[in-house]
Amino acid sequence: MNQIEKRELLFDGNEKQIFATDQPDKVIIHYKDVTTAYGGIKRARFKGIGCLNNKISAILFTELEKAGLETHFLGLVGEREQLCRRIAWVDLVAVCHNRVVGSLAHRLGVEEGYTPGNTIVDLRYNTDELGNPLINDDQAVAIGLVSYDELKYIYATVHKANEVLTELFRKAGISLVDFKMEFGRVPEDGHLIISDELSPDRCRLWDLETGEQFDKDRFRHDLGDIYQGYEIVLNRLEGKKD
Amino acid sequence: MNQIEKRELLFDGNEKQIFATDQPDKVIIHYKDVTTAYGGIKRARFKGIGCLNNKISAILFTELEKAGLETHFLGLVGEREQLCRRIAWVDLVAVCHNRVVGSLAHRLGVEEGYTPGNTIVDLRYNTDELGNPLINDDQAVAIGLVSYDELKYIYATVHKANEVLTELFRKAGISLVDFKMEFGRVPEDGHLIISDELSPDRCRLWDLETGEQFDKDRFRHDLGDIYQGYEIVLNRLEGKKD
Repeated sequence: MNQIEKRELLFDGNEKQIFATDQPDKVIIHYKDVTTAYGGIKRARFKGIGCLNNKISAILFTELEKAGLETHFLGLVGEREQLCRRIAWVDLVAVCHNRVVGSLAHRLGVEEGYTPGNTIVDLRYNTDELGNPLINDDQAVAIGLVSYDELKYIYATVHKANEVLTELFRKAGISLVDFKMEFGRVPEDGHLIISDELSPDRCRLWDLETGEQFDKDRFRHDLGDIYQGYEIVLNRLEGKKD
Repeated sequence: MNQIEKRELLFDGNEKQIFATDQPDKVIIHYKDVTTAYGGIKRARFKGIGCLNNKISAILFTELEKAGLETHFLGLVGEREQLCRRIAWVDLVAVCHNRVVGSLAHRLGVEEGYTPGNTIVDLRYNTDELGNPLINDDQAVAIGLVSYDELKYIYATVHKANEVLTELFRKAGISLVDFKMEFGRVPEDGHLIISDELSPDRCRLWDLETGEQFDKDRFRHDLGDIYQGYEIVLNRLEGKKD
């Protein structure tokens, strides 16, 4: 994909930049060496973390594509950059919980790590000004974010992705505790596809045997070297040793 | 129903007391002259308010029963008391919004009074300790409150009740802006029926023409004589003049 030419900066976010390209339906997403938490309140630079997130995202998007799910990912174009379809953002985040951890455990008053008999999928309204509140189907439709049919697609996609990624991580000796998934609208006909990133910044990933945390909770709760945690995830996904 | 004998106090709540009777499957619910808001933080006595809530609840439960919905209400047994089926509480409150007002408008960042194209039904986990958080279907099932089939029944019941009550209030010149509905489990077989109360303590009720508020928001926001507001609701439901 050497023929793609990077053009102007379209968006400069906390952890990623998005650049136009010479093709109007494609963008280049640049993963920064920055990690943020608590809506950007906690923030730090970690040399090389952007490369890890870029590569891990590429692996996970590719796995979802293989399983028949449509994502914005088109291919890696560098150590910390990937080519993606240009989409219109939808201000929703779906969060899929196989175990109940963190703010959800507090909210529901259950033990940290509780494993329910069913998978929990939450929707959050992606607005920093409102504190990214939990939102339900009727509310999401009422404020014009999505239609009921699109919600059906979102839930089905999240459940399918959960199956695929849980199995992929299980083979790598990792438990997929939870993950966030965003969606974007393809300009041509407005249909939704999986967007954003899939990385230890968006998932909780625990060692299957020891429960050691390899994800952003290392940063949130100062649990140790975040780069090392993400590197273990990449190495294991690539079949290398820790 | 003179043959029913009131026995020991089973529950003494902010706004209601529940008494056992000589029949194990029936209770007497006593409506106090007390109004509370903000989880009991704001609290006041209003002489006669319990009588109004008791009578209005009786009218609304009767209307729902006529429409084929099953409620715990069996009949009035006094000015401020009604005979009800004894049920096991379910710690869920369904809130049905025809317009977006109050905390929901803040949560979603929309204009107070916004009328969406769809009806919004929220579920709240009825626990004062956790601040009665918004909860979604998967979460409610995960913590064992209800099953997915029971949620289907709850949503269908709330939507049907909304149709019935919206029409009843419309005939009385009142707009049903939103209402809360609780459910209880019948001991014999565990199936759900509508419980708690249906009154201006649980609904937002605005004059159809002027938008004047007749409900608990008078108390929450010090908008005027709460007794008078509730009395207007009762009079209009009974076909009397304000």
